[in-house]
Amino acid sequence: MPALDLTATTVELTRQLVDIESVSGNEGAIADAVEAALRPLSHLEITRDGDAIVARTQLGRDRRVVIAGHLDTVPVNDNLPSRLDADGILWGRGTADMKAGCAILLKLAAEVTEPALDVTWVWYDHEEVESSLNGLGRIARTRPDLLAADFAILAEPTDAEIEGGCNGTLRVEVRTRGRRSHSARSWAGDNAIHSAAPILALLAGYEAREIEVEGLVYREGLNAVGISGGVAGNVIPDEAVVTVNYRFAPDKSGAEAEAYVRELFAGYDVTLTDLADGARPGLDDPLAQGFVAAIGSDARPKYGWTDVARFSALGIPAVNYGPGDPALAHADDERVPVEHIERCEAGLRAWLTSS
Amino acid sequence: MPALDLTATTVELTRQLVDIESVSGNEGAIADAVEAALRPLSHLEITRDGDAIVARTQLGRDRRVVIAGHLDTVPVNDNLPSRLDADGILWGRGTADMKAGCAILLKLAAEVTEPALDVTWVWYDHEEVESSLNGLGRIARTRPDLLAADFAILAEPTDAEIEGGCNGTLRVEVRTRGRRSHSARSWAGDNAIHSAAPILALLAGYEAREIEVEGLVYREGLNAVGISGGVAGNVIPDEAVVTVNYRFAPDKSGAEAEAYVRELFAGYDVTLTDLADGARPGLDDPLAQGFVAAIGSDARPKYGWTDVARFSALGIPAVNYGPGDPALAHADDERVPVEHIERCEAGLRAWLTSS
Repeated sequence: MPALDLTATTVELTRQLVDIESVSGNEGAIADAVEAALRPLSHLEITRDGDAIVARTQLGRDRRVVIAGHLDTVPVNDNLPSRLDADGILWGRGTADMKAGCAILLKLAAEVTEPALDVTWVWYDHEEVESSLNGLGRIARTRPDLLAADFAILAEPTDAEIEGGCNGTLRVEVRTRGRRSHSARSWAGDNAIHSAAPILALLAGYEAREIEVEGLVYREGLNAVGISGGVAGNVIPDEAVVTVNYRFAPDKSGAEAEAYVRELFAGYDVTLTDLADGARPGLDDPLAQGFVAAIGSDARPKYGWTDVARFSALGIPAVNYGPGDPALAHADDERVPVEHIERCEAGLRAWLTSS
Repeated sequence: MPALDLTATTVELTRQLVDIESVSGNEGAIADAVEAALRPLSHLEITRDGDAIVARTQLGRDRRVVIAGHLDTVPVNDNLPSRLDADGILWGRGTADMKAGCAILLKLAAEVTEPALDVTWVWYDHEEVESSLNGLGRIARTRPDLLAADFAILAEPTDAEIEGGCNGTLRVEVRTRGRRSHSARSWAGDNAIHSAAPILALLAGYEAREIEVEGLVYREGLNAVGISGGVAGNVIPDEAVVTVNYRFAPDKSGAEAEAYVRELFAGYDVTLTDLADGARPGLDDPLAQGFVAAIGSDARPKYGWTDVARFSALGIPAVNYGPGDPALAHADDERVPVEHIERCEAGLRAWLTSS
């Protein structure tokens, strides 16, 4: 079994984690390594749930924070093992999303034995695949007691800045119908692809809104992410489907967002295929304000949906804070600056020891 | 080997042909049966080419007509064997497209031993599949002497009316390009599906033209027959493709039709994927005029592309004339009225014996 050395630098620990391949569904080895590294630490109470590890301090503090990261990655594409270049950039699958974050959590879990608030450290599985498999979601359903807390931090890549809340997301299929005919006698049919013209025109002309929620400005988006139609090269098609993705600010619920899209495409056959509520930034919470003050940077809005929404659904204010550029998260040239790792580690350590 | 009885009625002969399954690529048995039935007839010179049979009278007439039909069918879908109902309708795969026509040709080839003009009877393979496999096209390339003639009749289903010439057909892929981004930050990308909105608007608003050629009015058509685009549910797509089918009147060449479509979609990436010239009706030809007069019905334009265009390309005027509704050609409830079979047989027989 690959072993993790918690006395190594956090950059070295990141490399050790990155070099244990853990594409979603294959987190067994890395979870074993994390568990084995933590078991000897007497100040932590360890729980294993599938391939997720929960490590809790039990110091009787009156407040508790959950600090979480996922152990899985999207598929490797010739970008392992890791490589540290002369400019202080660590390259490889999982460096940004999000093993540098996981390494910081491991390092601080081991070294901050007497934090100012109780900490629940979580490393979990299946974040990069369909939502129903998500390890954090599984624990929230089956062991919600393990996640009980007053505040949560998710170490997703944020360029080492605090990003509050997240936009919600939904997908609908907007469908047109027509009547088939041979294309040599097209007037005998009714072309469903032609009928999709107003849908695309609406999307092309849509002005995305910017909405302020608790001091952060969330930018929305309404986009076709897929289109299909056609029976054969000589047939007038009787159906076309436009798949539309709406990213909506956390001022509205998923149900409100769905109603908005249904009204926008009134007259078409609209089928909801995917819906995830957003998360309000929670920055009116004193714990969150203390965290922002300790890190010393302004909070920004998070546009992409992240698991902070799972904490939000449990009533726990949550922010994203981690090393790495989110835009590189799934890129083949995924990488993380050493400076980000050091800055996030120092920020979290300062807050945990001073709160 | 299934045997054909050329002394049976033409309806019975149609049933015999229909009940020899001959989906494209599987014409061996039916071609063998046709060849075996014709070989004993001393007034015909028989040539076998692959699974095509050519049977020629050699009477030294100063004019020659080709009368042709294809032996293959589209796939069977629980519609064999044939069934003759009490209303005089013969049901089954291939009844309309086009074994009733093939049976008429066989019957007349056997019985009209001294036609007024020399006749080249052709039964061929691979009409219902990609053009490069077409048996008539193969003979035109490798044995053009076998097709030498002054006029041609193709026994495709036309509701027992004469249909002159045919529209041409082309397909182009009209492509838009954009820039990928995560759909949570759609403003970082450029949505190629949205960029297809003007293409669909143009197609939806297109007024198909009617064009008179040699006295027949051809109706054109310009239609999307396919559309595709999309990378993943959370990605702004960087490409969309609309497949457009243009059915053009035989007043213009394929090259002219292509130029027209390219101008219509100027500014987009347009790729030609398929092009077949149409065929002028050829009704200014005295032989064609004699045929129309003998049948005693007005000629109509043919909208769908047929193998008459292959004769047209060889400089031979050609018309479609056969039993069955062309709209039922590939339908699961394919069928042919006995009355059509009898009418077409009588019409052809009258013309061949009186010209």
